[in-house]
Order: sequence, then C-alpha cells, then structure tokens
Amino acid sequence: MALIVQKFGGSSLASPDHIRRVACTIAATKKEGHQVVVVVSAMGGETDRLLALATEINPDKPARELDALLATGEQASAALMAMALQNLGLSARSYAGIQLPLRTDANHTRARIVDLPTSVLRRDLDQNIIPVVAGFQGVNGNGDITTLGRGGSDTTAVALAAALQADVCEIYTDVDGVYTADPNICPSARHLSKVTYEEMLEMSGLGAKVLQIRSVELAQKYRVPLLVKSSFGSNKCTWIVEEAKSMEMESAIVSGITLDRSVAKLSVIHVPDRPGIAYQILAPLADAQINVDMVIQNASIEGYTDFTFTLSREDLAKARPLLEQVAKDIGAWEIRADDSIAKVSAIGLGVKNHPGVAARMFKALADENINIQMISTSEIRISCIIEAKYGELAVRVLHDAFGLQQS
Amino acid sequence: MALIVQKFGGSSLASPDHIRRVACTIAATKKEGHQVVVVVSAMGGETDRLLALATEINPDKPARELDALLATGEQASAALMAMALQNLGLSARSYAGIQLPLRTDANHTRARIVDLPTSVLRRDLDQNIIPVVAGFQGVNGNGDITTLGRGGSDTTAVALAAALQADVCEIYTDVDGVYTADPNICPSARHLSKVTYEEMLEMSGLGAKVLQIRSVELAQKYRVPLLVKSSFGSNKCTWIVEEAKSMEMESAIVSGITLDRSVAKLSVIHVPDRPGIAYQILAPLADAQINVDMVIQNASIEGYTDFTFTLSREDLAKARPLLEQVAKDIGAWEIRADDSIAKVSAIGLGVKNHPGVAARMFKALADENINIQMISTSEIRISCIIEAKYGELAVRVLHDAFGLQQS
Repeated sequence: MALIVQKFGGSSLASPDHIRRVACTIAATKKEGHQVVVVVSAMGGETDRLLALATEINPDKPARELDALLATGEQASAALMAMALQNLGLSARSYAGIQLPLRTDANHTRARIVDLPTSVLRRDLDQNIIPVVAGFQGVNGNGDITTLGRGGSDTTAVALAAALQADVCEIYTDVDGVYTADPNICPSARHLSKVTYEEMLEMSGLGAKVLQIRSVELAQKYRVPLLVKSSFGSNKCTWIVEEAKSMEMESAIVSGITLDRSVAKLSVIHVPDRPGIAYQILAPLADAQINVDMVIQNASIEGYTDFTFTLSREDLAKARPLLEQVAKDIGAWEIRADDSIAKVSAIGLGVKNHPGVAARMFKALADENINIQMISTSEIRISCIIEAKYGELAVRVLHDAFGLQQS
Repeated sequence: MALIVQKFGGSSLASPDHIRRVACTIAATKKEGHQVVVVVSAMGGETDRLLALATEINPDKPARELDALLATGEQASAALMAMALQNLGLSARSYAGIQLPLRTDANHTRARIVDLPTSVLRRDLDQNIIPVVAGFQGVNGNGDITTLGRGGSDTTAVALAAALQADVCEIYTDVDGVYTADPNICPSARHLSKVTYEEMLEMSGLGAKVLQIRSVELAQKYRVPLLVKSSFGSNKCTWIVEEAKSMEMESAIVSGITLDRSVAKLSVIHVPDRPGIAYQILAPLADAQINVDMVIQNASIEGYTDFTFTLSREDLAKARPLLEQVAKDIGAWEIRADDSIAKVSAIGLGVKNHPGVAARMFKALADENINIQMISTSEIRISCIIEAKYGELAVRVLHDAFGLQQS
C-alpha cells in the first residue's frame, strides 16, 4: 500500500462529466489498495470567468480581494470532486486551504507556503476517507486568503506529498508527460519516460508548460518523486526524479530543446562604464518586482558601454518608463526595446561534462543563418536569444543536431 | 454617526453593473458620516448554477460538500463588492464566514449561529475600513463550512447588527418593503411604512417572501431595528420594529393579508380515537424532519375519528409512505392527500383585541362561496385553508373586507 497524492488540473475538470471521470481514476487507485490524497485546480474556464468579473468591477484588481475571489474556484471543484467520489460509494471530504490550514506568507497573488499541518489529512486517511484539497490557496498570518500564483495547485500537491511523506505525487494534466521538444513545433519529438529535477527545472523555466517551476523546486528539495500523466487516457507518463534514479539519462548529452517566446529585450545605449552602474540600472526594476533574466554588458569603448538584458514580455510596458528615467539620470543616450525575440535552449545533464555542446549548438544555428543575439549558460543548459521568427526552425534544427528524434 | 449594517440580496448583485451600483449606495451612506458593515448574498443565479453542477455530479448532494460548494457564491460576491468599493476610493475588506469566524452548530444546510466574534470587524471600523461579509455561511466546531439555509444572508446581517449593536440593519432587496397584500394579486395593496416584529413573523412564515423568518426572530430577540428597502431606486421602505415604536399600527385591526400556496393536506381516515393516537401518527414525520402546520381531529363517532393536518407541499412525497405505514399499524382505513389547497391569512396586532375579526373573515369568504376547510389562529393571525383556485380571489376579498386598500 502506497500513499499517493493525485493532482488534477483545470482541463481535467472542465465539466461535471470530466469530474466524474477523474473520480473514477481516483477510485481505481483506491481499489488497488493505496491511500489517496487529491488536489484539484478550479474547473477549466472558471478562473478566467472570475478574472473577467473582477476586471469589469475594478481594473486594478486589488490583490487581497482577487485572492479571496479566485480561491473560490478551487474550493468549488474540491467540493464537487468529494461529491463525485461519494457518488461512487467512497468516503471523501473537501478542504479549502484555510481549513487545513495551509499557511503562507503575506504576499497576495504569489504567496509562498510557510506551514502545512497534516493532522486533519492523517485523521481522514486513518478513517479511510479521501481528502480532496483545493489547490492554489492558503491563508496568511492575518487570516487573509492567499493564492500561490499561476500553476499553484501543482505546488500545493507537491507540498502535501512532502508533508505527508507520500510515495509519489502524480500530476494529471492535458499532456502525457515531457517531450524532447514541443511536438507541435517538432513532429519528431520523443516522449521521455524520465527526467531529473534539474532538467525539469530548466525546462519549466524556459517555457515547457508542464509543471509550475516552484513545484519542481519543492519536489527536488523534499525528494518527492513526481509523475506527470495524462487525464485523457494515454498510457505514457514521465517520472521526474533524482539524478541517481535516472541512470538511463546519462547516455544522452541533451535531453530536450525548449523555446520561450515570452521574452523581450531592453538595451540602454551609451552608458558610462563605472562601478555600480549595473545596480543603478537594475535596482528600480527589482523594486517594481520585475525579474531580469539574461544580462550583457558590452566591452567598454572610451569609458562607455551598452547594457542589454532580457525580461518577460508582459513586464516590458512597466519596465520601459522606469528605465527611461534611469537613462536620464545616468546620462545614457537612449533605450531600445525589442519584443520580437525568442529564447531557444538545449537542456541536459550531459551538458556539464561535454564541452562541445555549445559549439555544436552554435554551428547548427549558424548553418541555418540564424543569428545569435545573446547567450547564457547554466550547468545543464545553453540558451540563445534569436529573432522570434526563427524560433520554431531553431528548435527543429537543434533537435536534429543532438539526435533527439524518435528512434 | 450611526453604525449601519447593509445587506444586499442576489437580485441586487446580478451583474458587475449591479455590484457597482450597490457600491455607490454604500458609498453614499459612508459619505453621510456613518459606519457601514456590508453583508452580501451570492450573485443572482450563482447559487442555482452551483446547485445544478452538484445535482449533475451527485443527485444526493451530500450536505457537508454542498455547504462548502454553495458558500463560494457569497465569498466571491463579497470579494467583488470589496473591489467595487475600492474602485470608488473607499477602503474595504471581504470576509468569508470562516474568517470572522461566524460559528454555527453542526447542522449542514440549515445551521444555526452559536457565536459571532466582532473583533475583526471592530478593528476594520476603527480604521475606516468597510467590512464586506459573505452572508449565508459559517463554520462549525469541526472546522467544516456550514450554511444557514434559504435566505440565510438576512440572518447573517441581523446577527452582525445584534453583535455589533448596530443602530439599524438595512435589508436591500428587489421589493421596496411590506405591503398589505401581494400587489401582483391585489392591485389595491397599500405599502406599509412600519410593521411590528410579530406581524412580520406571521407574514414571513406565511409566504410573504420579503425576509427569512429566522432573521426576524433574531431581530426581535435582540431588538435590532430592521429596514427593508429596494435596491432599485424606490424611495419607499418598511421599518420592522418593536410594538411600542409602532403606535400608528394600533388603529389598524388587520395590517395585511397573505397567501401561502406551498401547502398540502394529508388526512388519515377512520382512526381509532384513543389517547396517544396523534403522537403515534405525527412522530414518524417529526423523526423525518417534516414540519406539520395545522392539525385537526374530527369529533369522535363510535370510537373513530378522522385526523387531518397540513404540511409543506414539497414534503408530501416523503410524508405519504411514512403515513401509509402508520395507517396500517393503527388499523386506519386510508390516507387522503390533497395538494390543491392554499392558506389565506389575516394578520394584525388588532386581532387579539377585536373578537369580531374572525367572523368578518369567515363572512367575507362565505359571501364569495369560498369553502373553508380548516381554520387556525394565533394571537395576531387567523388562517383558513381553502381550495387553491380561490386563493387570489380570497386575498382580494379579505383585503377589501378589512379596508386595507389605498386611501
């Protein structure tokens, strides 16, 4: 008998029919003799419906109230799922985050979990009751309802699996796992049956929308084995595990190619090259909660340099006026913005031990006349900023270059 | 400066536009220098939407989960209302019942309030913040979300007004107060500017759907002045107050005529007339939570009698098989059911001091050849069961007979 946390996303819960089908999946797991804790997202479309109401009433969408509003979506689907399970003759009880209580810090709309008591859930499991937990939400020290940000239900599921020391955390979604590239872009993409936490982190952060990055970080930290499965009947799945458990990966240098189209680039032209200048440029953005990704400072010519960085495209409008002010303050010439770029990345544990990976990547892009605008690397990843229009082509070219196609 | 609790029903909150308009009403009260606590129902239609989802997933609608589901409706509208108030430049914070916490007993779907701490609300009021409380819901000793039953948001509002010792509890609804009869039935019905708690209780219980009866009981118990107003711009309103404050009522013998079409009648024919027989007949119904209203036992003939009572029409299907069993046990001949009846009532403080009221009522009905099947009276009410098809006619006839028409 294993203890299994099963998380179901909104597309798996889009209608009463969907909810009944998911209940059958849970019942089957229970019938195999396992203990199950369920985590649910809001019904597909519900969060957008609530957001639209909020926007119509107050375009600013005050954070505390937005959290209280959005949390109702998951609370409702948890209650409906508990009803569906009871309809199958099982015992089940729904819980909103505030009922466990799943405690978070005070950051509305992107709160972090600080405590997750399990006594209520343990009591249910001991009594053969299936707890159904509303994902995405918690309560802060002030008693206010908080939410964990986009994809927060994944984080709820992993946190519960960690707190309960579950044997596995199963994430049911609308894809059947992780591929070597997006199959919509690269038809020869191959399904991966295992990836490491490290690889998944790089993939999540770079636009492979399978799992929220924070949930993978949390799984890695508490060594929770993750299993990504399809709610729609595919038999394939992907394990996300520790490196040691993933020996078969060793042979592949690169396990996947990702494309992130949500990036933009800002350049400050003709910046005086003096100590502290990078801080002076980036601090106002940090203060405004704008994350900067890749940063490049050109070699200095006669005491001046150009300063370029990438950021999320949706932060561009907010960042630009802040940067205009900075440019004025430091006497730079001008700001240039570019939102027609994309980031293509090669990810794999092998990258760290194979010095030739970068060279192979640059050559493959060059062979197609794709110009590389910026480069960044991590231990297991090499990323290039290129013109957006070459994004899909670059993925296919690199997929081939690293021999990832289906065998 | 007064402390005012304002409660808004679902029809006043049916769309973002409605919510914005209600926010303006609240802002106007605030601008007059008053402290305001707001209570909201779910947006119009939302409770029905959630009920339909639940029914599709599990026709039994398990009570604990149904409460958790339905409570989301009020939680969402409270958050949206707080957003709307903030959009007008006011400070506001929404609260689900579990956040106050509004503590109830364990009876799901019809819980009763056992404790209502006000520290959170007092703190907000001291800081010039408008608390917006989700009506209809609470939390039981086990931490489960409960609901207060149909119209429970009225009860939340009155309970808050009592706990905060508010100066008035304003109930905004889709009618502009209480009338001498339903204007849809009786075009000459007159608006009442004041009624007593006692009269309102009789009217609420008899089908005048202005306020939940429990909220009026609570208002009477804690002497909370109630004001029923329209959300849709009428200047009329009705005060519901103590008898002493309602001197003008003294002159009217009858203040209103009500019609209750939701009743049915069950008769047990040829019952042995022995001590304890009424208990034997009604106990199984009480055990099944079926409320019995009027009860008549005919004069005994040769040791046998007929036993007739009224109940809510929606309980008829549940009551009948229970009664069939009883009839068998006690050797009665048969059960007769009749769901084509209605209860017409004359209500007024003057009834208790004017012995002629009943006679005038019976004569008015007799003059129209309306047969009276059963009669019951209270201190301030006389009710007659008649054939359903004569219901509207009876209201108009009695309205005239007691001189209630507009002057």
